[in-house]
Amino acid sequence: MSPAFSATQVMAIVQSARTLGSTEALITGIAPLELAGQGDLSFLANPKYRDEVARSQASVLLLPVDYPGTPPAGQLWLLLDNPSVGLTRLCRHLEQLLWPKPAAGIHPSAVVAGDAAISPSAHVGPLCVVEAGAQIGEGTVLQAGVFVGARAVVGRDCWLGVHTVVAQECVLGNRVRLQPGAVVGSDGYGYDTVKGRHEKIPQIGNVVLGDDVEIGANTAIDRARFSHTTIGEGTKIDNLVQIAHNCVIGRHCLIVSQVGIAGSTTLGDYVVMAGQAGAAGHLKIGSFAKIGGRASIVRDVEPKSYVTGTYALPYLLEQKFQVLRGRIPELFKRVDRLEAQIGSAVPEKPSA
Amino acid sequence: MSPAFSATQVMAIVQSARTLGSTEALITGIAPLELAGQGDLSFLANPKYRDEVARSQASVLLLPVDYPGTPPAGQLWLLLDNPSVGLTRLCRHLEQLLWPKPAAGIHPSAVVAGDAAISPSAHVGPLCVVEAGAQIGEGTVLQAGVFVGARAVVGRDCWLGVHTVVAQECVLGNRVRLQPGAVVGSDGYGYDTVKGRHEKIPQIGNVVLGDDVEIGANTAIDRARFSHTTIGEGTKIDNLVQIAHNCVIGRHCLIVSQVGIAGSTTLGDYVVMAGQAGAAGHLKIGSFAKIGGRASIVRDVEPKSYVTGTYALPYLLEQKFQVLRGRIPELFKRVDRLEAQIGSAVPEKPSA
Amino acid sequence: MSPAFSATQVMAIVQSARTLGSTEALITGIAPLELAGQGDLSFLANPKYRDEVARSQASVLLLPVDYPGTPPAGQLWLLLDNPSVGLTRLCRHLEQLLWPKPAAGIHPSAVVAGDAAISPSAHVGPLCVVEAGAQIGEGTVLQAGVFVGARAVVGRDCWLGVHTVVAQECVLGNRVRLQPGAVVGSDGYGYDTVKGRHEKIPQIGNVVLGDDVEIGANTAIDRARFSHTTIGEGTKIDNLVQIAHNCVIGRHCLIVSQVGIAGSTTLGDYVVMAGQAGAAGHLKIGSFAKIGGRASIVRDVEPKSYVTGTYALPYLLEQKFQVLRGRIPELFKRVDRLEAQIGSAVPEKPSA
Repeated sequence: MSPAFSATQVMAIVQSARTLGSTEALITGIAPLELAGQGDLSFLANPKYRDEVARSQASVLLLPVDYPGTPPAGQLWLLLDNPSVGLTRLCRHLEQLLWPKPAAGIHPSAVVAGDAAISPSAHVGPLCVVEAGAQIGEGTVLQAGVFVGARAVVGRDCWLGVHTVVAQECVLGNRVRLQPGAVVGSDGYGYDTVKGRHEKIPQIGNVVLGDDVEIGANTAIDRARFSHTTIGEGTKIDNLVQIAHNCVIGRHCLIVSQVGIAGSTTLGDYVVMAGQAGAAGHLKIGSFAKIGGRASIVRDVEPKSYVTGTYALPYLLEQKFQVLRGRIPELFKRVDRLEAQIGSAVPEKPSA
Repeated sequence: MSPAFSATQVMAIVQSARTLGSTEALITGIAPLELAGQGDLSFLANPKYRDEVARSQASVLLLPVDYPGTPPAGQLWLLLDNPSVGLTRLCRHLEQLLWPKPAAGIHPSAVVAGDAAISPSAHVGPLCVVEAGAQIGEGTVLQAGVFVGARAVVGRDCWLGVHTVVAQECVLGNRVRLQPGAVVGSDGYGYDTVKGRHEKIPQIGNVVLGDDVEIGANTAIDRARFSHTTIGEGTKIDNLVQIAHNCVIGRHCLIVSQVGIAGSTTLGDYVVMAGQAGAAGHLKIGSFAKIGGRASIVRDVEPKSYVTGTYALPYLLEQKFQVLRGRIPELFKRVDRLEAQIGSAVPEKPSA
Repeated sequence: MSPAFSATQVMAIVQSARTLGSTEALITGIAPLELAGQGDLSFLANPKYRDEVARSQASVLLLPVDYPGTPPAGQLWLLLDNPSVGLTRLCRHLEQLLWPKPAAGIHPSAVVAGDAAISPSAHVGPLCVVEAGAQIGEGTVLQAGVFVGARAVVGRDCWLGVHTVVAQECVLGNRVRLQPGAVVGSDGYGYDTVKGRHEKIPQIGNVVLGDDVEIGANTAIDRARFSHTTIGEGTKIDNLVQIAHNCVIGRHCLIVSQVGIAGSTTLGDYVVMAGQAGAAGHLKIGSFAKIGGRASIVRDVEPKSYVTGTYALPYLLEQKFQVLRGRIPELFKRVDRLEAQIGSAVPEKPSA
């Protein structure tokens, strides 16, 4: 960050519960504990890095309220219930300074249909395409090269990153964010095989994204075969995720990078799917379920359950299996030995 | 769908074998069985949803010919050998009404090389780039922002979605469809490591897609190191798939989302690879082989075989393994117990 | 390839250690051993294909120096320590003939900020966008539709493929190559969950790519939450890879297609991660470590180790497990049988 802040300014932005120590340094950077130096702010969010606090050369540290001890000379501690939230406050402040919202208006190089309804407060960047009948809401920003198809509806205060695609008829709520290269409304993958040829099943539904949804870079959300593929309010989807046609994803779910969800599967609310997990089609995953990284879901998942592994098992059972897995070669040897011993002690056929 | 159809019109489009019941409702939507209401058409394709038919409030239902019983008052049943095919007929009709083919011509914002050969019946959308010597066949549609590189050849009646890339020298057959963001002809991944540095191996081959190939959103098909990466006629590839350089994929294969196929691997015809499966390089996967979801293929696969799992096993063996996997912790305990018992009955060293 | 070379020209380009035989044919193509014919050059790099040499109809063959025997009439053998390097020399020569570097200059359709610093020797292709304060170095090529955001810095002799994105403030070294659709600088995936809503954590850091880095098609590299996501000099990343925020990837690593690396994980130098592998966040993977295809890394990995499998085990142990995995159903039966036998020989409770 190029902006510089005094300790007093940082304290006002971070809103810490308590402070210890002081610094005269101007804060001009944010860095991890072990890399931070004079003029940097750092923080302890993940307990894994706790040992690094005492060695950190940062001028300002955001720490949990129960962090013991006192700072060395020239170091300011800002104590918070959640240091991560304090850092977020500072970063939000910086973000607005560094990257102010672009001015309203349509770039002359954009290609916009005469009957598209674009709010006067929206920003349509260079080389965007907005097709006939599309709607762009108040305060929404289209970065460069964004495509909004015919009759698509984009709500208020959305942010559509570079080269994103909102295909025809798709609907975005308010405050939706699409990271660069995200595709909303590609065709679902469906074919009828007739006499050895896969005939395309038209995909005439759309995609509906609720308010506050975020979609990651180069993620693909397929349009429905008919009716809607739906992503509920507040759900956040990471990069390179595949959501197939007619999925219904609930509200406030977290779907991490490279997850794939096959067609017509439904997720309840607050489901978490960790990275590279996959779910087969036509399944129901209940609300508050947690799916481990790389898990394969091939059956319905109960609400609030925590499953993981290949053909996902309950989390604890899978963990036990994983611990024992490396000992399976040895188990085969143990059984060989048992059989040899038994063979000499007890004949396999009692009548022998 | 905004268009409305009478029951008679629907019957004509769907071409059902037999009808039962009747409805006066105008059909204005398509919905799943349990969500459908008055004015909607629904259908039973997946037997999993059979129980929902009796409760469905749809005005028209597409059902298998052997579906028993009779419809309630005001509901029309259209019985077909394959209800899914009936639905496809209706959707194809709707698709043409909703999304008519764009008019022939080159949008003034497109950047087209003087010597590119573009059929007068092709549509080149806004902000497309067509480089020197490229050919675009009759009736082909380039949506907005499509790139066709130098000397690339695109056949007849193709549909190239928003932001798709056909790199230089690549060749597309007729009726090829590329979903938004698909990349055809990125460089293969190949390096010679010389004195600790990875030196790029030029990738001077191309990609050849046969007739009726479909490529999903944000999928990447690498150009060959030399000669061709080939996708055979009628093969359908889903979103976010990786096809590495010099792969030869046969005809009429189905390659589902997030599959990865490493370099120089060949697939016969009618191979199915389910979602997130992967194949190592330089392998042969025989015609009609089925690869399960998430399977890892590290050896050649026989034609017509069905393999799945990590380091893919025959399907039935893998299924048995998966069923037993959760019982392995218990198996270790059973062997512990056996060893304890044997220990007291039979000394490990007979001489002791 | 359309260019044609005499045998003498090919020998000069390939720089073979020794030659055997001769050919009068003009060389006009490169093909695999079993497909090559008159006028083609072929080569033996992978020993797997050794048996095909004797049957090959190629006019010129690149072979290892220790390849025995002599060529048939009309076939020229060029013997090299590393035939692959010879082929690379030829292909590099061809690449320059076929695809000469585009001329310096800014295409009139590009949208370039007035204060962007673009080297006069750079090429900015059609429909590119270069924002305020961005820098483009000498000899760098932006293909069509490339986006370079505000204050981003792109070094010398880089090649940015079609539709690539370098988001604001990101920094690319010299000779960096981005394959089509690659996104550098998408937001990291980070949220604070406050009262049931996932509040976005601003991602105000950037991405820094060292010299000679290559990034594959539709790969996503997330910008840091603060400070930098870093890819070290000479590291090559394949298609559809996910690198999350604040990762630090060392120098000369090879990261193959569809790998995912979660946030803040660090890789040393010369790490190899094979296709579809994944690493959880906040881990350290030591220099020269090898991670097998599809491996799941959930713990730190020692330098120079070779791990693979689900919850990656040492390579040899994992291989043993994989071999035994298919015999686990049989192992259960063996233990059943042992228990039945023991049951008759030795009572489970010694006191019974």
